[in-house]
Amino acid sequence: MDDDVPLILTLDDSGSSAMAPLDDLDREELPNENGGSYDVINDASSPAAGDCCAQQGSARHNWEMNYQEAAIYLQEGENNDKFFTHPKNAKALAAYLFAHNHLFYLMELSTALLLLLLSLCEAPAVPMLRLGIFVHATLELFALIVVVFELSMKMRWLGFQTFIRHKRTMVKTCVLFVQFIEAIVVLVRQTSHVRITRALRCIFLVDCRYCGAVRRNLRQIFQSLPPFIDILLLLLFFMVIFAILGFYLFSPNHSDPYFNTLENSLVNLFVLLTTSNFPDVMMPSYARNPWSCVFFIVYLSIELYFIMNLLLAVVFDTFNDIEKRKFKSLLLHKRTAIQHAYRLLITKQRPSGISFKHFEGLLRFYKPRMCARERYLTFKALNQSHTPLVSLKDFYNFYEVVGLKWKAKRNREHWFDDLPRTAFLIFKGINILVKSRVFQYTMYTVVAVNGIWILVETFMLQGGNFFSRNVPWSYIVFLTIYGVELLLKTTGLGPVEYLSSGWNLFDFSVTLFAFLGLMALAFNMEPFYFIVVLRPLQLLRLFKLKKRYRNVLDTMFELFPRMASLGLTLLIFYYCFAIVGMEFFAGVVYPNCCNTSTVADSYRWVNHTVGNKTVVEEGYYYLNNFDNILNSFVTLFELTVVNDWYIIMEGVTSQTTHWSRLYFMIFYIVTMVVMTIIVAFILDAFVFRMNYTRKNQDSEEDNGIVLEKEISKEEVVGIIELYKRSSAATEAAQLQKIVLQMDKYGQMSTVFLGRRSRTKSDLSMKMYEEEIQEWYEEHSRKEESQTPLQDPAPASNSAVKPLSLRQRSQTVI
Amino acid sequence: MDDDVPLILTLDDSGSSAMAPLDDLDREELPNENGGSYDVINDASSPAAGDCCAQQGSARHNWEMNYQEAAIYLQEGENNDKFFTHPKNAKALAAYLFAHNHLFYLMELSTALLLLLLSLCEAPAVPMLRLGIFVHATLELFALIVVVFELSMKMRWLGFQTFIRHKRTMVKTCVLFVQFIEAIVVLVRQTSHVRITRALRCIFLVDCRYCGAVRRNLRQIFQSLPPFIDILLLLLFFMVIFAILGFYLFSPNHSDPYFNTLENSLVNLFVLLTTSNFPDVMMPSYARNPWSCVFFIVYLSIELYFIMNLLLAVVFDTFNDIEKRKFKSLLLHKRTAIQHAYRLLITKQRPSGISFKHFEGLLRFYKPRMCARERYLTFKALNQSHTPLVSLKDFYNFYEVVGLKWKAKRNREHWFDDLPRTAFLIFKGINILVKSRVFQYTMYTVVAVNGIWILVETFMLQGGNFFSRNVPWSYIVFLTIYGVELLLKTTGLGPVEYLSSGWNLFDFSVTLFAFLGLMALAFNMEPFYFIVVLRPLQLLRLFKLKKRYRNVLDTMFELFPRMASLGLTLLIFYYCFAIVGMEFFAGVVYPNCCNTSTVADSYRWVNHTVGNKTVVEEGYYYLNNFDNILNSFVTLFELTVVNDWYIIMEGVTSQTTHWSRLYFMIFYIVTMVVMTIIVAFILDAFVFRMNYTRKNQDSEEDNGIVLEKEISKEEVVGIIELYKRSSAATEAAQLQKIVLQMDKYGQMSTVFLGRRSRTKSDLSMKMYEEEIQEWYEEHSRKEESQTPLQDPAPASNSAVKPLSLRQRSQTVI
Repeated sequence: MDDDVPLILTLDDSGSSAMAPLDDLDREELPNENGGSYDVINDASSPAAGDCCAQQGSARHNWEMNYQEAAIYLQEGENNDKFFTHPKNAKALAAYLFAHNHLFYLMELSTALLLLLLSLCEAPAVPMLRLGIFVHATLELFALIVVVFELSMKMRWLGFQTFIRHKRTMVKTCVLFVQFIEAIVVLVRQTSHVRITRALRCIFLVDCRYCGAVRRNLRQIFQSLPPFIDILLLLLFFMVIFAILGFYLFSPNHSDPYFNTLENSLVNLFVLLTTSNFPDVMMPSYARNPWSCVFFIVYLSIELYFIMNLLLAVVFDTFNDIEKRKFKSLLLHKRTAIQHAYRLLITKQRPSGISFKHFEGLLRFYKPRMCARERYLTFKALNQSHTPLVSLKDFYNFYEVVGLKWKAKRNREHWFDDLPRTAFLIFKGINILVKSRVFQYTMYTVVAVNGIWILVETFMLQGGNFFSRNVPWSYIVFLTIYGVELLLKTTGLGPVEYLSSGWNLFDFSVTLFAFLGLMALAFNMEPFYFIVVLRPLQLLRLFKLKKRYRNVLDTMFELFPRMASLGLTLLIFYYCFAIVGMEFFAGVVYPNCCNTSTVADSYRWVNHTVGNKTVVEEGYYYLNNFDNILNSFVTLFELTVVNDWYIIMEGVTSQTTHWSRLYFMIFYIVTMVVMTIIVAFILDAFVFRMNYTRKNQDSEEDNGIVLEKEISKEEVVGIIELYKRSSAATEAAQLQKIVLQMDKYGQMSTVFLGRRSRTKSDLSMKMYEEEIQEWYEEHSRKEESQTPLQDPAPASNSAVKPLSLRQRSQTVI
Repeated sequence: MDDDVPLILTLDDSGSSAMAPLDDLDREELPNENGGSYDVINDASSPAAGDCCAQQGSARHNWEMNYQEAAIYLQEGENNDKFFTHPKNAKALAAYLFAHNHLFYLMELSTALLLLLLSLCEAPAVPMLRLGIFVHATLELFALIVVVFELSMKMRWLGFQTFIRHKRTMVKTCVLFVQFIEAIVVLVRQTSHVRITRALRCIFLVDCRYCGAVRRNLRQIFQSLPPFIDILLLLLFFMVIFAILGFYLFSPNHSDPYFNTLENSLVNLFVLLTTSNFPDVMMPSYARNPWSCVFFIVYLSIELYFIMNLLLAVVFDTFNDIEKRKFKSLLLHKRTAIQHAYRLLITKQRPSGISFKHFEGLLRFYKPRMCARERYLTFKALNQSHTPLVSLKDFYNFYEVVGLKWKAKRNREHWFDDLPRTAFLIFKGINILVKSRVFQYTMYTVVAVNGIWILVETFMLQGGNFFSRNVPWSYIVFLTIYGVELLLKTTGLGPVEYLSSGWNLFDFSVTLFAFLGLMALAFNMEPFYFIVVLRPLQLLRLFKLKKRYRNVLDTMFELFPRMASLGLTLLIFYYCFAIVGMEFFAGVVYPNCCNTSTVADSYRWVNHTVGNKTVVEEGYYYLNNFDNILNSFVTLFELTVVNDWYIIMEGVTSQTTHWSRLYFMIFYIVTMVVMTIIVAFILDAFVFRMNYTRKNQDSEEDNGIVLEKEISKEEVVGIIELYKRSSAATEAAQLQKIVLQMDKYGQMSTVFLGRRSRTKSDLSMKMYEEEIQEWYEEHSRKEESQTPLQDPAPASNSAVKPLSLRQRSQTVI
């Protein structure tokens, strides 16, 4: 609806919102706001204004549209999609829906991956995966065409104007264009040219819906850049000063190859920054004059121990600040999304809240897989007042509540409560045994003994092929003990409860692996022998003993997704550098390649005979090459670890030009940025968590978020009626089960528990509790100054003004 | 006073404290609390109780004693000395005073330094400094005897009981005893035995009064240890698991020397933790099977990138926490000290505050060098009320105010205001010029051009002896510009104002150095040629341009003292390890020593002839030895930097036993602890400062703490009278000058400015503003529950109970 036609709804405006019954699904109310965007296209000729009392049939249709749009708003809020990409008409909506489901996302992801994986088969290919130019170029063209299709869907959904304005999409389009032309050129010429633009392929991956975390990381890295660059300049400045000093001081010494020219001086001080050439770079001058060590000590103290740490401090500080601002903007964005959705769900007649009927309609679109019981429980959990309506204030908790998994609170304490008396007693005994401290500490002792055993055993067998055919008896003994423990725990606690704990899951899988290892040993399956060596992992259980370790390991698991995304971000940088490296340095290093350089030894491969023995002198560094993408990745990892990276750099440089050093130095700086961010992130996460535990020392037991709701039988029956009348048979049948269950146990009501794990957002909510209130107030003040939005909770008959789309979009952008 | 004799003072208890005149020095009041400790010994036979009304003469003596004790309390508060070491009687007081002045401190420091420096001359001595055994053993005995003397003074002051209880002193005594015996043994045997106990000598240094910061650092390190060790265990645990895994996986490969035994596997993974052997350790297995790189990547990701950062996070968190707790306890300790001092300074007659007479008496002991004017200004700055008494509440600010340096606020804006008209105009012109932006930016441009010039110039002269005899003209031109700038600034701003800015001081010294360098060049003074190369430091001025750099560099300067103390702490660890290293490894490495080991190349020194050229193949690593203490320090620094440390370790190991590795590994872990603390400290300091500036963005201009006080002529005259009556002629004369000055300018009053630089404590005060109030309340609640202390500000006639010493000491320990 591009024009703001006033919607004057007069029908049924009796203000009778005092106690609206739940079962009002058949009474056709009209939405407060008329679907906003999509329905107008359907009957563009007859605007809904004025004559909607005549359109009883289309009212339901309007509602469906409203549900859909509200669900889209809520999704946008959750995914932090900006509202200016909100679909504006029915055609856009169709494209939006097409482009927003997991099938489409998977297609996006797999084309991106296909494009990236092509590097395995292209020109400097991994030997086993080499493909003909025709094959891989065709594959590439195919993938690019799929990307074109994806982009056209996006254009359809966004409209041309928004499409142009959306930076990331525009960059993607340009890259696509370049790639397309290059792929065709390759296909025509039947030979690959220097295609460093292949490094841009990762943009397709970054743009995937599933890679949102990577995008966030990249944004964070770019935001941390300005202060980082400032300090980097300081670092480089001192480096230049010291390079000049070093050149003046040490170049008179002709046996010192490190400072004989200014360029060498600069390069070596850059390498010294990474400590990679440390005592060596000092040695010639130190041998001549012992006091020259002062130069190096001062340089390292200033650069390495001071400015590098300063860099970390500055990045850490910026990171902290960004995290908080990000959290704030996301929180407010969600809040705005909720407001938008709310406006679409209230009715003219009852503007003070959302009834279950409409809430249920929303959830059908927002979470189609949710069952009827959960929908009702979510509604109940949101509803803090005693009216049957969810007010805006309640609705603000939508995101916190909608993620809960609901389960009936079992009256049975153990899984074996229903078994006959004898069995019950046996299992009860096992249960008590398994939960006893004695049992736990016995197991810890066993694990410790096992650990020492493995250590001693390994120490005893020195070298040789020790995977002897007979299985060592100690292995069988310990495995039996673990097996028995596993059995006892599973029976004593019940499989579900047993596996619900992460630690038990860990025990289980390690024991399983150990068992597989035993099989492998017993049946001589060579390729699986590595499983045997996983045995020592069992020792990790010992770390459960101390609270700090539990904390650390728990945090480690919590951090894992974020760490993985950071790792992926790093891999994307690796990919870019690997492509560039392959294009320029593929095949330049090989055994004995660099005999003229200072690092010749590391590349030497000599096979000479001393007496009657063949001695192979291997420098091995020729293995660190850019000959294919896998090798490049390993080489780049070695560069990341930094130690001895100058050997790789000098090797390549001696075979190419000295400008190659720029590649290595830039790579060092880029990984330094990413690594500093990673360190800052780990620091931040741990310090945050420790502060959190310090603040909430009383509530030590951390079971995630738990909510309890009681439902009475009448309520359920009422809802069944409601569903039946709207001929939703499956939902009614689902709910009927609950009633049957209640009848079976003779209860009048059942308690349900909603549970989800605690997220960083929950922790932040608690940490910034006070500030959040301020943000909200500030936000709503800003809102009010733009559009008069009122929280209609108490005044039930104050008509909410229907906001036109234009007005709404003002509040958004 | 060990017994609590009640002091019932009845004389002159008229409660006439309404308006006590300032000039009351001749009226002998009696202290509220009778000197506490010292006077009783003087006349132990006649306790002061009851008959003090008869002792008009001894009242003044009592007061002196009270002043002295109050000053001691305040000193104890400032130095964070525990009150249980407070001198308890007159004999102790004498010893205390003897042991608490700078002469004694200097003696302490110089003996400690002498003992440490002896290592330069002892057995594996620095060649130039070698002394005969008889000489250095005698020197040592002499130094130890001085230490005995110091300790006996301390015993006298503390008393035997407290002496025994004071841990640090007891440790020192034991070490002293051992050292003494060993020194005698050396003297008798005329040969040095394995004296690793020499490593304990640094305790003498640590115990010095001037090394308080080092003690604090050590305490902080030890407090951070428990969490550190926990994570270290986790680290080592993973190391052991991976060592076993690595042994199983790679020992079948016979060309892999790194994993052939479990011990090798462990050692190499330990070294890998430091990345020092990185690509090399992977190469043999990587050459055999490319997938084996996964093992190393996983190991490094877990250990280096995760757990090592975790270590930093945990230490950083603990550090934060400790810093805050330390600040709190110091704050409360100071507060208690002030309370103790206050009790000794109020009178029975006027219990609501301290009069100037008594305050002046206190300051005479607390800061003997303070002049009369400053004493009065301090009193005035403390006194917030309009009564002539300083209440307890005001007195709490004692430490903040007493450090201020007072100066009369000059009415003259510039130094040249008094000059004749023409001169004034000229200088005013220069002043305006110097302060103008144009001038500043011109200078920045000149500096930048100079920088580029130096770079290009250096780049042009490649190698050779470029210290040609003729001075380059560019040098003279730029130096002239800098000289003119310096001259303009000095004349325009006045020398005092010019040098009061740190940046100007920096400019000045760099220009001076450049000038000295020019002299050196012009007069061919070879040894000074290094000054020339300091020229590029001038470029540092460019960093004034950006706010972030100013911030960073300011913080750098603020941190400098603390950094220096951390450096000293590290040096103390170095010393211990150097002694141990020298005792065990002196002389074990030499050229071509390690031809059987894996690191033979690095120690090779071959001198062979190719054609008609002598080629020297130098490995240089034999220079990294423990042959004397200076060499040891350099070697230890190389170990700290970590890169290639295993070459040093393996070299030494190949010449001794493989247990030597323990030394190197322990050293690595110790430096890791200290380095982590240093990083945590830098992080903490910067983040703290950035938070601070973010919190106080409006008050950007940071001139330190400034206080303004106005003194009228009458006041000064009154105080002069006061001093004259108590026949303190010098003080009176000092004050007379102020009156003369006022008369000269015809003023009725002068404004004085008190100024001092902002300390970390001031920043913390502001940061924790709210919490501090809570701490105070909590503290006073605790106090009250122990001894009823009241703040006697409003109720002037409520008699303050004289606390007995025993009661007092309760509040302290």
